[in-house]
Amino acid sequence: MKINILTLFPEMFQGLFSHSILHQAQQKGIVEYNVVDFRKYSKDKHGRVDDYPYGGGGGMVLTPQPLFDAVEGLREQSQTEARVILLCPQGERYTQKKAEEFAEEENIILLCGHYEGYDERIREFLVTDEISIGDYVLTGGEIGAMTIADSVTRLLPGALGNETSAVTDSFSTGLLEYPHYTRPADFRGWKVPDILLSGHHAKINAWRREQALRRTWERRPDLIEEISLTEKEIKMIQSWENN
Amino acid sequence: MKINILTLFPEMFQGLFSHSILHQAQQKGIVEYNVVDFRKYSKDKHGRVDDYPYGGGGGMVLTPQPLFDAVEGLREQSQTEARVILLCPQGERYTQKKAEEFAEEENIILLCGHYEGYDERIREFLVTDEISIGDYVLTGGEIGAMTIADSVTRLLPGALGNETSAVTDSFSTGLLEYPHYTRPADFRGWKVPDILLSGHHAKINAWRREQALRRTWERRPDLIEEISLTEKEIKMIQSWENN
Repeated sequence: MKINILTLFPEMFQGLFSHSILHQAQQKGIVEYNVVDFRKYSKDKHGRVDDYPYGGGGGMVLTPQPLFDAVEGLREQSQTEARVILLCPQGERYTQKKAEEFAEEENIILLCGHYEGYDERIREFLVTDEISIGDYVLTGGEIGAMTIADSVTRLLPGALGNETSAVTDSFSTGLLEYPHYTRPADFRGWKVPDILLSGHHAKINAWRREQALRRTWERRPDLIEEISLTEKEIKMIQSWENN
Repeated sequence: MKINILTLFPEMFQGLFSHSILHQAQQKGIVEYNVVDFRKYSKDKHGRVDDYPYGGGGGMVLTPQPLFDAVEGLREQSQTEARVILLCPQGERYTQKKAEEFAEEENIILLCGHYEGYDERIREFLVTDEISIGDYVLTGGEIGAMTIADSVTRLLPGALGNETSAVTDSFSTGLLEYPHYTRPADFRGWKVPDILLSGHHAKINAWRREQALRRTWERRPDLIEEISLTEKEIKMIQSWENN
């Protein structure tokens, strides 16, 4: 898979793509990150990519020309109609389901705006998807692009060392994760639950499922509605609700 | 303000903090980023920070000792009871309101777990806040920490060049932003709306407010419920609903 990122701050991605799991995935040939400074596509003689907004108001607005030319250049290079994903607060909320959808693509192009805004014609006539990673404001789209690159890469076969990890994580099972414990069994007087030291695997699994359900019920009841439950689990939740 | 980040991958932050607006804010003395590799706090002779999970299962679990010692060291250094914020999918959903809350602090400590999980006692006895940046799975907490660092920094006085920017962005006004346009007035036959070229500021402001309302109503009706509307605006929305 090839993940293209169009940004005015390519250096922001140095750390992410030269270290950790994303770096390893690129080394293994599972994914290729292509970070492009779209300023170099500007036809303005000073390399400008923004201009004053029509109608007045503060801040500068990204002009359409550099981004249209950059995207068209990438699409021509790859001979594909790659999806063009704009990171912006107005976009569809990013979810694990969306990550799975993007991970099926061979080629995606992520556009990082910056905080003042971008010309509406970019959104209307160039972009295929608008994505928001959450209800908060960032200085630009770069961290959103990192979020997509990271969440998509880890879904690609072979990217994670342990093949099971991607499957048992939060949101992948539909529930929040159960609590984990490791050594020491007693840390400053705080002990690991006895059940985990019992060696009784069926009981441990039942405890973990109950903990995951309980945590999800307490913190994210909206997620409970989406998953299938046994009759016993439904009764368990009803008893929590009654207390 | 001081933003401390405890991570096993300090290099991931190089790009973010050495470029762009965050770098400028640090140069201006508005914020200090302190990225600490908590492996150096490990008392294990091989510098290990994780171990097998009690009760079996895949993946490794972060042990409590290095993180407790690292946090306690930072708190002692700063002589404050800094909030300890864990990035994890089970956490409270991060919002602009939370960013504003964190921006009031003098000192925060962000803990980046990695994907296999961390000992539950870290969450129970060390952490003051658990934050999730969204319903998707990442390889670790680093991008979440970047999200908090970025969204909080831009709220600090003087961090953004244009002081008005932080106020008029999406979520800050409670509405999604209205469309922006810049030159050229005609790009490949796609034209800027006439109203923006009219020079009539009151009409332009009214148009922008209507566009922002309309966009929010279409894309994020949940946000509309939270803001105060004029009687005229309520009628406008009713007429959209009727069509």
